Amino acid sequence: MKVIIVAVIMLAGVAFAGDPGTEYKNLILKMSGEGLSSLGAFKTLSGITAGGPRLSGSEKSAAALTWLRQALVECGCDSVWTEPVMVPHWVRGRVERARVMAPGKKPFALSICALGGSGGTSAGGITADVIEVHSLDEAKALGAAARGKIIFYNRPMDPTKFSPGEAYGSAVDQRGSGANIASKLGAVGALVRSMTMSTDDVPHTGSTHFDDSTKPIPAAALGIQSADKLGALLHASQHVRVSMRLDCRTLPDAESANVIGEIRGAEFPHEIILLGAHTDSWDKGVGAHDDAAGCAHVIEALRLLKHAEVHPKRTIRAVLFINEENGLKGGLAYAAAPPRAGERHIAAVETDAGGFSPRGFGVSTDSLSFEKMKSWSSIFEPIGVDRIRKGGGGADISPLRDKCKAMVGLNVDGQKYFDYHHSANDTVDKVHPRELELGAIAIAEIAYVLAQEGL
Amino acid sequence: MKVIIVAVIMLAGVAFAGDPGTEYKNLILKMSGEGLSSLGAFKTLSGITAGGPRLSGSEKSAAALTWLRQALVECGCDSVWTEPVMVPHWVRGRVERARVMAPGKKPFALSICALGGSGGTSAGGITADVIEVHSLDEAKALGAAARGKIIFYNRPMDPTKFSPGEAYGSAVDQRGSGANIASKLGAVGALVRSMTMSTDDVPHTGSTHFDDSTKPIPAAALGIQSADKLGALLHASQHVRVSMRLDCRTLPDAESANVIGEIRGAEFPHEIILLGAHTDSWDKGVGAHDDAAGCAHVIEALRLLKHAEVHPKRTIRAVLFINEENGLKGGLAYAAAPPRAGERHIAAVETDAGGFSPRGFGVSTDSLSFEKMKSWSSIFEPIGVDRIRKGGGGADISPLRDKCKAMVGLNVDGQKYFDYHHSANDTVDKVHPRELELGAIAIAEIAYVLAQEGL
Repeated sequence: MKVIIVAVIMLAGVAFAGDPGTEYKNLILKMSGEGLSSLGAFKTLSGITAGGPRLSGSEKSAAALTWLRQALVECGCDSVWTEPVMVPHWVRGRVERARVMAPGKKPFALSICALGGSGGTSAGGITADVIEVHSLDEAKALGAAARGKIIFYNRPMDPTKFSPGEAYGSAVDQRGSGANIASKLGAVGALVRSMTMSTDDVPHTGSTHFDDSTKPIPAAALGIQSADKLGALLHASQHVRVSMRLDCRTLPDAESANVIGEIRGAEFPHEIILLGAHTDSWDKGVGAHDDAAGCAHVIEALRLLKHAEVHPKRTIRAVLFINEENGLKGGLAYAAAPPRAGERHIAAVETDAGGFSPRGFGVSTDSLSFEKMKSWSSIFEPIGVDRIRKGGGGADISPLRDKCKAMVGLNVDGQKYFDYHHSANDTVDKVHPRELELGAIAIAEIAYVLAQEGL
Repeated sequence: MKVIIVAVIMLAGVAFAGDPGTEYKNLILKMSGEGLSSLGAFKTLSGITAGGPRLSGSEKSAAALTWLRQALVECGCDSVWTEPVMVPHWVRGRVERARVMAPGKKPFALSICALGGSGGTSAGGITADVIEVHSLDEAKALGAAARGKIIFYNRPMDPTKFSPGEAYGSAVDQRGSGANIASKLGAVGALVRSMTMSTDDVPHTGSTHFDDSTKPIPAAALGIQSADKLGALLHASQHVRVSMRLDCRTLPDAESANVIGEIRGAEFPHEIILLGAHTDSWDKGVGAHDDAAGCAHVIEALRLLKHAEVHPKRTIRAVLFINEENGLKGGLAYAAAPPRAGERHIAAVETDAGGFSPRGFGVSTDSLSFEKMKSWSSIFEPIGVDRIRKGGGGADISPLRDKCKAMVGLNVDGQKYFDYHHSANDTVDKVHPRELELGAIAIAEIAYVLAQEGL
């Protein structure tokens, strides 16, 4: 065993000459004491979500941005500001409904919701035969047979994947690109099985993308039970028709903003440790996990650091991005902005995986920096966030990739994430105050260690 | 980095000459594919809990034992049997209520439930002044002042502990011993703040212990809101009285049983890898997490191993213990039984921490065996159960300590555990089918690796 022990000490030595590790371990205990007794992250989450959902361009989003700016002031930032961003402004409208008809069968309603970016129907709706497919290729192969039809994408997420994110990745191309392909083929509408492994009938929205040259057709997500019923009917009947009405439409782009606050670094103020989350949400539920939880993590992290009275060497900056859900305009605008007074981004840490129990960090960086960060894992052991793994980041920070040494994502226990994601189920009662707080403590700690050690 | 790599290979070499690690990694992928697509553990959990709670000695417990025996037959055990155990038979009765009165205040009801082992009141109940204390020592220091009073233990669980189990440990002495001390001092009743960090008013029961020489007085748990209200009233008023009625009583011990099934080892059948959980529950809720989840883990683990068509070298034995909650008679009886045909226990793995996402195993064993088991952690990485830490076991298997080389406990993400534990909140809807299944896969895998590698 001796060889191991020597090796571990050598590795630790890379990071902590003179064992500042003790300082970091004391800090995490101090912050977890304060955090777990006051549960500030949950109070922040409640404030963010109090006004309802926060779809980009909406009045509720604008109100939330005002609230968030004030929250950054109150948590003790040295400076707080906003940076303007133009965002897409899609609105759902009041009516979204669909009904199934087949010869000799009693018509029944489907549980649907429009996908973000979907075209609307006229007041009379559309009615057409339905063709079921299980992949984009299968849709493309329909060719002229798709003309005038509603294309129904019904491939489930792969439940055998341990990672729900991977399971999502195994099916989400249908939601993202299915309607675009259907439109190109001359179909009049698209239906997509919801991206969830839950068994209820709540539909899950999300973005669907149309090429500039392609007409946005009506496109809706189906609850899982509805998708199963429609699939079964299609196996039993030759002629299944769906009539569907969606009131959604796309308005002109709207003015919005990223909300930014920072604790200025004492020694290297121009070196930035960015903490990112997104303020916008879908318009079902209140986006409690996606991503009010991330905003609450970041704001609470700054509060905990101020409460612990630390003085980071490098600047710790919270960037609460707008428009992650349907455009990424906030992330793109932040990365494209002219350098702010010669600053340099050392690391960007995103939290956009929900407010569940944190397990560790995913890190995309060079191998030396990765080993350095991995050597910090024991610091996080007291709160169980010690899995530091290769590969990580987040959508909002992804445009910074070439300007920033390390892209980091907070990894949480996400088995329930897609039960709630983009649906009416994403509400505050699904977030556990202690689990949420642990994420904030983890974010605070990694921010401080990065600010002291650099990369 | 080279030193590290060599060391890791050396360490791995202890366990896997010729890399049977690949076999184990393939097995966990195979079992997670089957498990996560069929979600068998949740079906088993639903079966166990369908009849309601399973307090030792009750008819519902007896019915559940019959169901569980059949479940072990159906999951493919080579043999299934029961071993008789005499268990305590405490019954709650129909009435449990309490009311607070103070001069000039409007009387109000408290949300209470009797603690297991509590004495009952007469039909008229008891009425007495209340004294609040925050520790056993504070109660003892009351001396003669306690005579004729109701002693109210109101120290909360320490929320600053990361581990909810530690937070529980910081307060549960009040529930376990508070009433006994109160009775010795001549108090007529005891009230104890519920062992939970949730903020609702649901009371959490659990065992309270009286010495043989001490009269069991009425003792009840208070919901957190009720405890806070009573505490506030005691700070505001000099004379606070509570009237309380409990119908509970202790009947003569009842016949019950441990339910046992096993897959017989192909090479060393007398060497046992024990998988343990307990069948009894408290009589509030249905004991879904505590510990139907553990029973479901164990039964599903055997099913997954049979489905994977493996042939373990050593015997893998499921022992579904009775009476963990209020006597441990099942664990004691199993350990005290005469050796079964010269058998030897190599490892005992208990799952009694709830059906939440598993994170790893706690292990109590000698240092060489610990390092051996720790070297297996990468096998569990595909399902995120790779934290193998020192210190583990479980109540049911604890009497085996001196007869068994390694005591192992499945560790799960328990932040929510005490929201439900021993209360009406411990119901099936609080268990997530995928999280539960992952625990079963982890139990199956550790059982198989232990059966092949020994210790």
